[in-house]
Amino acid sequence: MKSIEINSPYDMHLHLRDNDMLKLVAPLSSKSFSGAIVMPNLVPPVDTKEAVISYKNRILDAIEADDNFTPFMTLFFKPYTKEFLEDIKDEITAIKLYPAGITTNSEGGVESIDTVALAPTLNAMAELNIPLCVHGETNGFVMDREKEFMSVYEALAIAFPKLKIIMEHITTKDAVELLKKYDNLYATITLHHLLITLDDVAGGMLQPHLFCKPIAKTPIDRDALLEIALSGNPKVMFGSDSAPHPQEAKESCGCAAGVFTAPIALQVLAQIFDENGKLDNLEAFVSTNASKIYNLKPSSKSITLIQKEFLVPTAYENNGLKVIPMFSGQIIKWSTE
Amino acid sequence: MKSIEINSPYDMHLHLRDNDMLKLVAPLSSKSFSGAIVMPNLVPPVDTKEAVISYKNRILDAIEADDNFTPFMTLFFKPYTKEFLEDIKDEITAIKLYPAGITTNSEGGVESIDTVALAPTLNAMAELNIPLCVHGETNGFVMDREKEFMSVYEALAIAFPKLKIIMEHITTKDAVELLKKYDNLYATITLHHLLITLDDVAGGMLQPHLFCKPIAKTPIDRDALLEIALSGNPKVMFGSDSAPHPQEAKESCGCAAGVFTAPIALQVLAQIFDENGKLDNLEAFVSTNASKIYNLKPSSKSITLIQKEFLVPTAYENNGLKVIPMFSGQIIKWSTE
Repeated sequence: MKSIEINSPYDMHLHLRDNDMLKLVAPLSSKSFSGAIVMPNLVPPVDTKEAVISYKNRILDAIEADDNFTPFMTLFFKPYTKEFLEDIKDEITAIKLYPAGITTNSEGGVESIDTVALAPTLNAMAELNIPLCVHGETNGFVMDREKEFMSVYEALAIAFPKLKIIMEHITTKDAVELLKKYDNLYATITLHHLLITLDDVAGGMLQPHLFCKPIAKTPIDRDALLEIALSGNPKVMFGSDSAPHPQEAKESCGCAAGVFTAPIALQVLAQIFDENGKLDNLEAFVSTNASKIYNLKPSSKSITLIQKEFLVPTAYENNGLKVIPMFSGQIIKWSTE
Repeated sequence: MKSIEINSPYDMHLHLRDNDMLKLVAPLSSKSFSGAIVMPNLVPPVDTKEAVISYKNRILDAIEADDNFTPFMTLFFKPYTKEFLEDIKDEITAIKLYPAGITTNSEGGVESIDTVALAPTLNAMAELNIPLCVHGETNGFVMDREKEFMSVYEALAIAFPKLKIIMEHITTKDAVELLKKYDNLYATITLHHLLITLDDVAGGMLQPHLFCKPIAKTPIDRDALLEIALSGNPKVMFGSDSAPHPQEAKESCGCAAGVFTAPIALQVLAQIFDENGKLDNLEAFVSTNASKIYNLKPSSKSITLIQKEFLVPTAYENNGLKVIPMFSGQIIKWSTE
C-alpha cells in the first residue's frame, strides 16, 4: 500500500472560530497538523496583545496537549504603532489585512489600501519581520474581485520590498502570474480551489457547502492553481481556509461563505498529488515551503498518509452544533494512518 | 398618479408546472396577462397531441374563465414527421428545443443539435410557420454556456432562413449582438435578467431564490439586455421564465434553478421602464413585439399599471405548497390597478 510520511505539516490559513465551534473544530486540525496560521476575524476582531494571548489559550484549551500543535497567532490589521508591534511581536506570526466588509466578520477592515497612509505600520512590520497576510479582493463583480486586486498587491510589493506579503487563498491565473513577478510576494492555496470551479457551486443545482469567498473561478484558473501547487514552487503554501459554519447557516437562504475541509485536507491533498504523479512535492506544499517563508522551526511531529479508502463522516457534531465537511458522506482515496 | 394601460400583455416564456403547483401559479399569471407561451418540460414531456390538449385543459381548469387568458401551448422538441406536425399545428404555438439535461426536466432533450439530422423536422416547421424556441446553452463552464451556444444559433439561422428561431431567456451581450445579425432570430428576455447579475446570486451571501438557468451574468451583459429591452427593439419580447419550485426545493442543499416572478413581473417592468424614462416602450416589449413575431391576434384584455407602492407577499401558498416570489416581503413601486 502506497504511503507517505510528511514532516511537520502546516495549514497556513485556518479559521478556528470561538466557543463551541472552536471546541468542535480545533481538535480536527490539531490531530493532523503540527501548526496553523489562525485567522483573527472573531467578533470583535483580535487586535490587542491581550486578545491574542487569550485566544491562543482558548485554542490550546480546546485541543489535546499531546497533539503537539502550535497555533500561529495573527493580529487583525489596523494602523499600529511600531512600539505596539515591538511589544506584540513575540506573540504573533503575521498580521492579516481584510478590506472592509469583504468576507465573514471583516467589517472592521481597511476602507482603502493606501500605501502612503499605511506606510508607518507596514514599514514597522518589514523591520520587525512580521509578514502581511492579505485577503485580496475588491468589492467589484464577484468573478473579477481578485483580478481587480492585482494592482493593489503590485503597489504593496513595490512600495514595501522588504515586507513579506502573503496573497491569501489565491483563486486565479492572474494571481499565479503576479506571484512570480515579485520576490516579496507569496501565496496560500486552499484544497477546494484546487478542486472546484464555479460550475461545482452553481453549474448544476446550487451547492451551498461549496460556496466560499473568494468564489471558485474558471477551469483555466483552477488548472493554474493546480500546476503551481503540484510543482512544489517555493512561493506557495497550503492554507486550507477551512471555514466552519453551523449547518443551518450553510443550508438556509443567505448561506454563509466557507468550505469546511480541515479534517480531510491532508488526505485529499495526498490523493491529488498522487493522481498527478507529484506525491514527492506534497511535503514542499504542506510543510517546507511554509517553514522557509515564515522561518518556522519544523516540529518533531510527522503524519503518515496512506492510500486507503476513507468514508468521510456526513457531519462533525458536538453539543448540538453540526458542521458539514467537504466530501460529506463520500469516499476519499487516502487516509491518515 | 402616473399610470399606463397595456393592451394584451403577453408572457412569452412561462412555466406553469402541473397538479397543485399549476393550480397555485396559473391564476397569478392569468390575472394580469392575456396569454403566455407555456413550457412543455413536464414529466413526461409534452410531446403528443393528446398531451398538449390535456395540459391545455388542465391549465384552463386552473384559472378563472373570465380572466380571458390564452395558454399558448408548446411541444417538447423531438424529430417529428411533417404529417404529425400538420395534424398538431392548430393546437400549438411553438416547439421548444432543450439540449439534453440542460435545465429542469430536460433529460429527454436533444443530445446534439445537428442541422442535417434535424432538417426534416425544422424544414417542416418552417413550412408550417411553427416557430422554434430554443434553450441556448452548452454544457460547458456555467458563465460561458450561452456564449458557446452562439455558433449553434448561427448555424440554425443560416440553415433554416424561413424558420423563426426564438433565443429564449437571453442573458449575454453576445446574444444581443447575434440577435441583430440574422433576420430570423428573435429573443425573449426575463425580468430577473434585466435586474440581477451573478453578484446578486453569489456576491454576498448565497441567494437561492435568485439562482436560475441560465445563470445571471456580468454587469456588462445585464446592461446590454436592459438597453435592447428598453429600446422597444421589435426583435425582443418579454418572457418571464417564471419558474416556481416549492420553498423547500429552493432553500435546501442542491437548490433547484428558477426565479418565481409571475405575480410581480408587469409591475416591476413598469418600474424599470419608468425609471429609465422609457415607459412608452413598455407595450412594445410586453405585447406588440410578440404579436408581430408570433402573428397573434391581440385580445381585448388590457391591464392598467399605476405608480403606487405594493408590498409583495412573502409567499404564495395553497394546499401546503409554498412558493417564494422575487421581491418577497419587499416594496415595489408600481402596482396593478
